[in-house]
Amino acid sequence: MKILLIGANGQIGKHLVQLLQESDEHSLKAMVRREEQAEALKESGVEAVVANLEGSVEELAGAIEGSDAIIFSAGSGGNTGADKTLLVDLDGAVKSIEAAEQIGAKRFVMVSAINANNRDAWADSPIKPYMAAKHYADKALIASDLNYTIVRPGGLLNEPGTGKVTVAENLTRGSVPREDVARTIIASLNEEKTYRQSFDLISGDILIADALKNL
Amino acid sequence: MKILLIGANGQIGKHLVQLLQESDEHSLKAMVRREEQAEALKESGVEAVVANLEGSVEELAGAIEGSDAIIFSAGSGGNTGADKTLLVDLDGAVKSIEAAEQIGAKRFVMVSAINANNRDAWADSPIKPYMAAKHYADKALIASDLNYTIVRPGGLLNEPGTGKVTVAENLTRGSVPREDVARTIIASLNEEKTYRQSFDLISGDILIADALKNL
Repeated sequence: MKILLIGANGQIGKHLVQLLQESDEHSLKAMVRREEQAEALKESGVEAVVANLEGSVEELAGAIEGSDAIIFSAGSGGNTGADKTLLVDLDGAVKSIEAAEQIGAKRFVMVSAINANNRDAWADSPIKPYMAAKHYADKALIASDLNYTIVRPGGLLNEPGTGKVTVAENLTRGSVPREDVARTIIASLNEEKTYRQSFDLISGDILIADALKNL
Repeated sequence: MKILLIGANGQIGKHLVQLLQESDEHSLKAMVRREEQAEALKESGVEAVVANLEGSVEELAGAIEGSDAIIFSAGSGGNTGADKTLLVDLDGAVKSIEAAEQIGAKRFVMVSAINANNRDAWADSPIKPYMAAKHYADKALIASDLNYTIVRPGGLLNEPGTGKVTVAENLTRGSVPREDVARTIIASLNEEKTYRQSFDLISGDILIADALKNL
């Protein structure tokens, strides 16, 4: 599939770029916010396009045109204010969903956060605004006509992946290496058991491909 | 109808309290965030309940139980950060919608903002995060099973109302006294032409009741 990756410069995004570069099944176009990020990707042989999640749906549709699957792994990050949480993590995500509908994308994979579907779980969270933004972005995706997969990872770790996970509709807590999140996303693309599904994801004992088949 | 007013202590809310106190058709229960606000209302003869829009859907459902119509005129205000915009103007509004569905409320009237439905109109707005929050709260209400009316006033003025307005699906710009916004909300409650409708509202030449009948 022709993959369009939104947030290619993020921490999960960088793992996704590497995995997709190695893939025989998929080709990659990376969407980034700044020209210099695109230049750096192009120097590593990655096709790249510059577009801003704070721009219009039309701008985003232009950037993702021709893609089969959209992966949304962008985030405003922990160093910006809640205004960016609203405008990027929520509105930017929903504009991406609307753009994907416009171009007739076959698949949309969203990187969310563990328990984003369960408001009570983040009632007292220090990142409650972020969780609320993910909650509503995910709801918009579920309400769309897209063939979506929403991956809700637990606490994100930078240690190497193990390739083994636990996935379920609702998990209480846990953590997972970013590399395994990226692998799970790639494995989801063609796995029918993940079509129009959402699941929490933490480290576990089951090989990713098998875990997804058991959903 | 038994009206439950969320945001009774706000600037539009205070007009609504006064109009509903004078009403023969409706009775009022005011929902406010702080105990002292409730006490002040009770001293003026207004039934009041304390509940927090940052609390749970269950807390809100308890506060609004027994009401026929919910009016949502709360706002986090201009002096708080975008975190409160997300948690009050968006999540608080959607939790109120979910609570209204739970209690089987007959009507839900939302105070929104002019052009909140039209993302392009606030692309460069200084209050873009607020507009995004209202946009998604309104979308959640439209997606609900409630018999809603979404009133989207233009720039809010504190001058006395004229009782005359312009309402339409989409207006470019304009302003309107808060008193006329409150009157329009009250007039909407039993006006079938406003059922499951959204409209922009600015000052104009047509009596409020007639303007709503022409929707």
